[in-house]
Amino acid sequence: MLNETIAAIRPLDDEAIAAARALQARLTKPMGSLGSLETLAVRLAGLAGTCPPPIPEPAALAIFAGDHGVHEQGVTPWPQEVTAQMVANFLAGGAVVNAFARQAGIDVTVVDVGVKAELDPAEGLLSRKVRAGTRDLSVEPAMTREEAIRAIEVGMQVADDLVSGGARALLTGDMGIANTTPSAALIAAFTHADPAAVTGLGTGIDSETHARKVAVVTAAVVGLQAEDPIDVLAAVGGLEHAALAGYILKGAELRVPVILDGVIAASAALAAHALAPAASAAMVAGHRSAEPGASVALGYLELEPLVDLGLRLGEGTGAALALPIVASAVRVLHEVATFDSAGVAHK
Amino acid sequence: MLNETIAAIRPLDDEAIAAARALQARLTKPMGSLGSLETLAVRLAGLAGTCPPPIPEPAALAIFAGDHGVHEQGVTPWPQEVTAQMVANFLAGGAVVNAFARQAGIDVTVVDVGVKAELDPAEGLLSRKVRAGTRDLSVEPAMTREEAIRAIEVGMQVADDLVSGGARALLTGDMGIANTTPSAALIAAFTHADPAAVTGLGTGIDSETHARKVAVVTAAVVGLQAEDPIDVLAAVGGLEHAALAGYILKGAELRVPVILDGVIAASAALAAHALAPAASAAMVAGHRSAEPGASVALGYLELEPLVDLGLRLGEGTGAALALPIVASAVRVLHEVATFDSAGVAHK
Repeated sequence: MLNETIAAIRPLDDEAIAAARALQARLTKPMGSLGSLETLAVRLAGLAGTCPPPIPEPAALAIFAGDHGVHEQGVTPWPQEVTAQMVANFLAGGAVVNAFARQAGIDVTVVDVGVKAELDPAEGLLSRKVRAGTRDLSVEPAMTREEAIRAIEVGMQVADDLVSGGARALLTGDMGIANTTPSAALIAAFTHADPAAVTGLGTGIDSETHARKVAVVTAAVVGLQAEDPIDVLAAVGGLEHAALAGYILKGAELRVPVILDGVIAASAALAAHALAPAASAAMVAGHRSAEPGASVALGYLELEPLVDLGLRLGEGTGAALALPIVASAVRVLHEVATFDSAGVAHK
Repeated sequence: MLNETIAAIRPLDDEAIAAARALQARLTKPMGSLGSLETLAVRLAGLAGTCPPPIPEPAALAIFAGDHGVHEQGVTPWPQEVTAQMVANFLAGGAVVNAFARQAGIDVTVVDVGVKAELDPAEGLLSRKVRAGTRDLSVEPAMTREEAIRAIEVGMQVADDLVSGGARALLTGDMGIANTTPSAALIAAFTHADPAAVTGLGTGIDSETHARKVAVVTAAVVGLQAEDPIDVLAAVGGLEHAALAGYILKGAELRVPVILDGVIAASAALAAHALAPAASAAMVAGHRSAEPGASVALGYLELEPLVDLGLRLGEGTGAALALPIVASAVRVLHEVATFDSAGVAHK
């Protein structure tokens, strides 16, 4: 399933890109006056292989939830139970991502790909648990290769189902106490950046905890033998990271834009890119997280974020804020009059 | 009317601000994890005088249109008729601002406060022409003091009517070929910045035109005798700038957030601030225009823009993109569960 998807990801369509560029020049606005939104809309035409590309609505946001054995190392002050408690909060509609999703008309799905606690079945919750949390990456590989592949395939299936159900954009979401630690390790591993430079304060930690976190990430990356992207994911990643990588790859195969949230999504995007470099054509950086690793990852992927407001919450909040901007950029190609049709004089 | 409004603008309400800060700390998210959106929501509580403040929807966007005598000086390659042609485009729903407004569910009103051409009556067009374009500010004052006051009062009345009609946010829009020239002059006059540093490329001009534009702005500011903000507006501003200043002041009086678009709005905001410093409490910087003067003006007003994507179109496009972000920030205070109510453990 994974290899078929990787093989099916095509590069941007040059003809649709040329058509979108030509259309941008005829619309009633000075050339280039929409800044990054013009290049984004042109790229999405190339992704869809048609101009104008579909307006990215309805949009679906999947929150992949998982726990982390490395929590044992004291890399965060939050208790591990908060992962399951926040899943319940998402399902009740009480989290920030729910409020942002209601604002933008985004459908939210929660996927248990690896929460440690057993979760009761609930509407809006997909039970796809690969295992009850990863192993402690500071002691042993977080997952086996088979577990990592299963988690990737969970993400692929979720993306496939959402697009079959009508979604025209896929937004990434995540929940997992301690998950900025594996994110930092993945970013250091894939970009070869200094682990200390990509390990941030997460949800807010003191300097002692941060020092411990940097030591854990550094040791994990230094000890990393793996070269194959799946082995890297298995060694230092999380189940939600693996699922997100699969979700991104399937979105790319289906030529649907995948709007990335913050540092967890960006680290998963590096894994997806390592597996299939062409997948980055489908990636839209929703926002610039305050986590330093996010900027390193986005720079490596050559993605410019749409929103930059100092958010460091995760859940998919930054992706949700970006959706209306992406939709606005695409709408221009559908709805704006040309100089000729509107009878507006050129300069 | 103007003096009553100025006298009625109150500072932020400290009690509502304290309540909003305390609420932010109880919601299910790490403290501070929403970055600038937390401080924005807190400020809007202070503006409304209540916590949570109203969700800023429905929102109304008024496009104030006017022409400029300084067009004679060759400061732009666009013919002056384009102002009226774009007004027709707005009314037909074919401009970029219309597409963005449809995306965000924003109601658009076009106000002829000073278009040179005679415009036929049309649905969605308010005929409030103070005069058929300004005089050439490089030769004489652009407006008389009385004309400037009448244009300010047009803006105040439009804001009052929109809020009476149910608008919970006012967005600024503008149309006027050559209007970045008076904007630059206003910014230089009010902030005492170097005219060359605040005079940009507008919709895209060559270096010869830019040099001419800098010379015009510099001469206008150097020759400026006025100290009183209304006299400054009259001398080097535009009818749409004056109307926007009134629109902002009335929004501040009514304690409704005013989302500023780009450089034209920012220059008008400086005039509003000079008339009533407390008015800046109602101002939300929608985006950072590519025009250098916009950043100078926003810095002077101590406003941080929400969107920064290199737009330089005007019309209200940057304000329209920002509305869903503002609404998302406020929704958090209405809809997000507290740690206690959701049963989520604290760190």
